This record gives sequence, structure tokens and C-alpha cells, in this order.
Amino acid sequence: MVGIDAGGTKLLVGVADEGLAVHHRLHRVWRGFERQEVLDLFVEVVEEALAEAPEAAAVGFGIPSLMDADRAVSLECVHLPLAGVPFRDLMSERLDRPVVVDNDANCALLAESRAGAAKGAADALMLTLGTGIGGAILARGELYRGRGSAGELGHMVVELDGEPCHCGSRGCLETVASGPVFAREGGRAAGEQPESALGQAKAAGREITGALVTELAGEGDAAAVGVITEAGRKLGAGLAGLANVFSPEVIVIGGGASAAGELLLRPAREELARRALGPNRDVRVIAAHFGDEAGMLGAAVMALEHR
Amino acid sequence: MVGIDAGGTKLLVGVADEGLAVHHRLHRVWRGFERQEVLDLFVEVVEEALAEAPEAAAVGFGIPSLMDADRAVSLECVHLPLAGVPFRDLMSERLDRPVVVDNDANCALLAESRAGAAKGAADALMLTLGTGIGGAILARGELYRGRGSAGELGHMVVELDGEPCHCGSRGCLETVASGPVFAREGGRAAGEQPESALGQAKAAGREITGALVTELAGEGDAAAVGVITEAGRKLGAGLAGLANVFSPEVIVIGGGASAAGELLLRPAREELARRALGPNRDVRVIAAHFGDEAGMLGAAVMALEHR
Repeated sequence: MVGIDAGGTKLLVGVADEGLAVHHRLHRVWRGFERQEVLDLFVEVVEEALAEAPEAAAVGFGIPSLMDADRAVSLECVHLPLAGVPFRDLMSERLDRPVVVDNDANCALLAESRAGAAKGAADALMLTLGTGIGGAILARGELYRGRGSAGELGHMVVELDGEPCHCGSRGCLETVASGPVFAREGGRAAGEQPESALGQAKAAGREITGALVTELAGEGDAAAVGVITEAGRKLGAGLAGLANVFSPEVIVIGGGASAAGELLLRPAREELARRALGPNRDVRVIAAHFGDEAGMLGAAVMALEHR
Repeated sequence: MVGIDAGGTKLLVGVADEGLAVHHRLHRVWRGFERQEVLDLFVEVVEEALAEAPEAAAVGFGIPSLMDADRAVSLECVHLPLAGVPFRDLMSERLDRPVVVDNDANCALLAESRAGAAKGAADALMLTLGTGIGGAILARGELYRGRGSAGELGHMVVELDGEPCHCGSRGCLETVASGPVFAREGGRAAGEQPESALGQAKAAGREITGALVTELAGEGDAAAVGVITEAGRKLGAGLAGLANVFSPEVIVIGGGASAAGELLLRPAREELARRALGPNRDVRVIAAHFGDEAGMLGAAVMALEHR
């Protein structure tokens, strides 16, 4: 089975078996952000993967987009030019086979729920921390979509007058705990603490990216650890609200920014325990089992289960 | 059928028919907040109601409490001394008949969903604005409880470093948009605008309550209107997050503080439309059809449907 996970900067295509083992992987960086370029690259890479899996009956796509109720049309897409695109039918025609599409975080939670960090849970949440924050809801064992686009857990307001968010609101969880926040706050900490490894990296002319902050924090630089701790604390405040709203068994944290691991998750758990209502204080907060491949694997599962 | 809705200050018991018409009502104010006093008043008032409805097979209770998964035990209860009480079995024994218990906001949403503002909706939310904010979730046509106590929509953080909340966190939605907020902000506005009706009421020695602010706003006092508009705006920011998370058909607003009506709901809708993601901007935000009786009616419905 073939699954595709499309992010804001890159595309991951995988050929997986029913046990969710990946036999073949293709990574591509977007060549450009014109709609036609994006759609052409999708087709090109999928055809390459299909050469390795000619028996695949259907293809599954996870895209960072709000979907309509039928999961046929992308309604709104912040990082790719897909808004208004009848993605399912268009891809199905170009690939000459059935296509299944869902929001990328829904795909990731599906994979984690089947065989990963949320296995066995009837009620679970997933947040994918990357360029933005994607989210998904498992309710009574099934992905929950509301009228179609439920699960945007990164776009709850946690600071009424906070930083502007890409979505047009202010102070969304995404503005205090996603990858770009590590870079932004890392840059600030580098300026304030020139003696730190972060400060020295800046003085040496290196770009302060989220990945660099995570790397230096992993090496024990206090300034970098402080940036990630603070983001984790704010993430935890958001998770406390979600724990009170959903009373889930587990909250799974994935996406590139979750590479910070326990440096991020420990303060998040502590803040959740401080803020959540009693019965929700023990909600488990754990890292995605499938890491960056959860979305791709979930898309492949959707393709496999396409009737 | 007999339904009871217990709030932080009072108790409402009703005898209703299957069409949700109320034939008999009893209001009582708590005599005291010792556990035994509270439980005794429950029994006394229900027995009085049962004298009017001797055919009632079961009795339904809505209590402002987090419930365990079986809805038998109150896990946490901010306004009444019920935490840890095996409420269902205890009441069943004292009343000598089956008892059904749920969170009061769940009861309210059940009634609104059956015959009120959320009739026909598969996916809906309810917020009851009173001394605190209660909440409930209807997902795919059924009340959603997660591990037992889901739906605490008033305890999402909307201001990371906001006012302390009764729940132990800070900056919960409850701290910016519930009844006591009208009183607190009304008192502030009265001091700042002594020429307003609100200011004159304060100067005349009247206590600035939420009800007074609502009354003066209804009469057009700009200071009072300003207080409710601002609370509505903050409520709307919280609702935008909920719209993004749930993508529901409708959000129903009930509880005593919703007596402010459109003065509160209009700014809430405007803020929701400004902040929510595109497909969620048109989520309907409407007043509870059954007003203050929704919780009692929903409790009665639960009793009726008790097998």
C-alpha cells in the first residue's frame, strides 16, 4: 500500500505492508509553490512509488488542509496552494486509481491508534508540532471530524492578545509551542545570553533554527533548554484545557518539533498536572511511536481500507 | 418523569411529560453546605415532587460535578460538597427507586438536543454560563464523555497568566466570561464611569451583581453594555477555539449569565467569525431554548430512558 504525507516544506511517500513496516521511502522537497507544480510533484512521486508497488489498489494522501465533510475537497490550506482544490477526484483521475485523502494529523493519529502510542485507546488526541500545529481526535475508537474539519487543536486561543497567528487569529497554541517558536525564542535567548552555546552560535553567524535549539538543548546548553522548557510549559497549559475538554486516555505528540523529546514533554506534563481538573491530571502525554512517518503510514492504512 | 438540576446556589426539581412540558416545579435554595444537609435536601425535594408523579419509575439528577465513567460517583465538585460521594447508589437507596446521574451541562445539552436549540444536530456543544462555566459535547448524536468527565469547556486556558480560577489553574474561559466576571468588571466600570447608571447604582450603595449589570445593560447604560460586550468578545475567542477543535453545527449558550442575550451573543459571534478558521466561521451560536430549565429537563429525559 502507498501513503503520502505532504508537509509545508516536503513530501514523504512510502510503500508499507499491512504490519506497517515500510519497504520503500521517497523524500522530496517542493520545487515551488505554484498549484500546478505542487500537483505535478505529487503525481510524479506517487508514480515512482507505484513502480515499487504495482499491486497497490488505492493511494492514500495526508495533506495539511481542512477538508470538506466528504474528504474530497481541500477547504483551507495554510502551507500549500490547495484551498478549493477537489483533491481526491483530481488525483484519482491523474493516477487512474482510487484515492483517499484526509488531514495529515488525522492520518498520523490513525497510524498511532492502530499500532503506535495510542494503540488500544478509545479516546485519544494527537498534536503534530511542526511549522504549525496539526491536531486530530479519536472519539470512541473513530477519528472525529465534526462537520468535516474538526481537530484543529493548534488553533485554540491560549493568549487572548498574544502573537498574530498564520490563521488570522492571535495567541493560538501554535504561536507559543510550534517549531518556529523555538527559533524565535532561541534567537531572543541567544541575544540575552551571549555566553551560552546558543549565544555563541549566533555570534558565529549561524542561523538560529528550531533544529539548532533542539540540538544545543540536547547537549545541555541552559539557554536552549530554557527555550524548550518554556515552550513545553505553554504547550502543557494548552494540553490541560484539552484534557478537561476530552478526558482522553492519551495525548500523542508528534511532528518535527517533538524531536526535543522529554525536554519538551516533561515540562508539558508538569504544567498539565498543575492546571487540569483532578480526574484529568493523569492523562498520559507521550511521543509518537512512528515519529515523522506516522502521517505517511496512516495515509497508507486509509488506502488499504478503502473498499 | 422527575428531573433535578442542582446548581451552586439552588436546586430545581420538575415533573415533566414526554413532550418536555413541565407540569410541576420546585425551587429550593441550599440551607447549608454540609454534605448531609445537601443530601437531605435532595431527598426531601424529590419526595415532594414524587408525590405529584407517583408513577415515575426513575429519577434523574444533573449535578455540577465531574463524574466517573459509570456515572455513579462524583469525582470533583467545585460548588457542592459531593466529591467522592457515590451519588447514584446513595440516592437510589434513599429514594427506593432507580436513579440516573450526569453532569448538569450534559443534561442541559441532552434536552436542547432532543427538542431545543440543538435539535437535529449530530455535532453540537453547550456552555452553561453561571457561577462557573459548565460544558457538554454532542458527538455523532451522542453525549461524549471520554473517560468519564469530558466536556469541561469552561476550563480551557485562554490567558496563560490570567486570573486564578476556582479549578486551580489560571486564565480559564470561566475567568473571563462567567457570571462573577460581570460583577467584577461591572464594579470596575462603575468606579471608572461614575456618571453611568452603573456608577450611580454603586454610589447609591447597591451591590454590583451580574444580574444588575445585565439589567442596566438591557436599559441601555453604556458602561454596563461595555462590560457585557467585552465578556462576549472574550467568550467568542474561546468559542473560536472550540469551533476549530470540534467543527460543530451549533454552539448553545445557556445558564443564568446568558440572560444578557444578544448583548452577550452578538460580540461573541463577531469575535468567533474574526478568529475561527474559514470553514468554522459560520458555526451557529444561539441561546438555549429551555433557558434555566434545560438541565432539569435533560435529567428527566435520562430518567425516562433509564431501562
